[in-house]
Amino acid sequence: MTPLQLRQQVRSGEFRLPTAGYCGAYAQANLVILPQAHADAFLLFCQRNQRACPLLAVGEPGQWNVSALGADMDLRSDTPGYNIYRDGELAAQTHALHDLWRDDLVVFAIGCSFSFEQMLIDAGIKLRHIEQRRNVAMYRTNIRNRSAGPFGGEMVVSMRPMKAADAIRAIQITSRFPAVHGAPVHLGDPSLIGIADINRPEYGDAVEIMPDEIPVFWACGVTPQEAIRHARLPLAITHQPGYMLVTDILNSSLAAF
Amino acid sequence: MTPLQLRQQVRSGEFRLPTAGYCGAYAQANLVILPQAHADAFLLFCQRNQRACPLLAVGEPGQWNVSALGADMDLRSDTPGYNIYRDGELAAQTHALHDLWRDDLVVFAIGCSFSFEQMLIDAGIKLRHIEQRRNVAMYRTNIRNRSAGPFGGEMVVSMRPMKAADAIRAIQITSRFPAVHGAPVHLGDPSLIGIADINRPEYGDAVEIMPDEIPVFWACGVTPQEAIRHARLPLAITHQPGYMLVTDILNSSLAAF
Repeated sequence: MTPLQLRQQVRSGEFRLPTAGYCGAYAQANLVILPQAHADAFLLFCQRNQRACPLLAVGEPGQWNVSALGADMDLRSDTPGYNIYRDGELAAQTHALHDLWRDDLVVFAIGCSFSFEQMLIDAGIKLRHIEQRRNVAMYRTNIRNRSAGPFGGEMVVSMRPMKAADAIRAIQITSRFPAVHGAPVHLGDPSLIGIADINRPEYGDAVEIMPDEIPVFWACGVTPQEAIRHARLPLAITHQPGYMLVTDILNSSLAAF
Repeated sequence: MTPLQLRQQVRSGEFRLPTAGYCGAYAQANLVILPQAHADAFLLFCQRNQRACPLLAVGEPGQWNVSALGADMDLRSDTPGYNIYRDGELAAQTHALHDLWRDDLVVFAIGCSFSFEQMLIDAGIKLRHIEQRRNVAMYRTNIRNRSAGPFGGEMVVSMRPMKAADAIRAIQITSRFPAVHGAPVHLGDPSLIGIADINRPEYGDAVEIMPDEIPVFWACGVTPQEAIRHARLPLAITHQPGYMLVTDILNSSLAAF
């Protein structure tokens, strides 16, 4: 299935699943959709927090077909699930945004760890949460984001346990992909970045860390979602976690070198 | 002082110091000099253990002026100190090899961690052993070398303690320099590579590891020296540890990308 074929199935309602594992060679994106009144500040927030918020594309106000992300794109319907936030609270979940769409809405597509996970798997590095078919474990940290307008808060990280040699290789591989979070931000002792209990992630599922492994932490695309909720904007729209936009961008094309 | 000027002072006997900190932009080399009868096996050993034995240059039999290493080179006298091993035992130390030189001696120049340490310092990463003017801590591990002829044994590693963010950056930086040991081979728990007591290095000086730091381990140029001693060759010559050959090769020219 090509990304376009998948998006067409999403659009028609045939496909309503989490997108992990589909179209593995292509980048999937976190979506943030904001009224223009807050878009400039959010763009600045992304620039100042690139590890957590690497931008793949930003649309024009009202634009729902951002060609940089793929052919025949309709961002009002091509993601299997959307969360609607009002005043920072989850107000609704929907499969399509046609009723909500406004000429001042701006789409932000943010790189997703699925891309680098595929690169790690291709390199022979086993990822426990994928082998156990769980969500990756995600944690709130004490790493402060750089604020912009109403957006601030702390970085959220995802964690993958690895043997040291795999961690070193994973750093090399993910360093080549700054557009999908790039290199880890931390490894080893979780308490040094404010994680009190590694067995209790704030998002996703806990995974076991073996005695010969260390936890490796990457900046996570949940960071901007948290920042948006805490900003308590009158309206903000995101994808539903796990239900991503599948783009036409080849993961391999995102390599910085 | 240029590398050529330094080598001329070494040759004349004016300079008899460890070479750390001199001509910082240029690569320094570990030297191994073997009779041709053992040179092919040692070349194979280096090929099979590139992390520990990255070759900068190999001479022809009898050649003491290897131009790939620098201009007006005399490898019989341009290193401030040589160790002479006979049957695997240190038999003598000398400043010049003219009396010992034979037409069948082959010079191997092996990359040295001084090169990547300079890159780390330039990137703002503090190295405790340099700040405290000590030798780097080195440890025998349980990582088996791949054997070739009489050469085998275990990898020796050097260790530098760092905060996690610096360790990640150091992996990125040193990955660009495979000719000078490249990326680390391990980080974190020393016992996983057979180091029983991190406070008792086999070579060099112990340094403190702070609570917010992890030990980061690189393959070390002492590995081939150990392999040579254990091979108990009738004759083998090396530089004296710390008294390196200063080459005309710019460290920056060794970047793989």
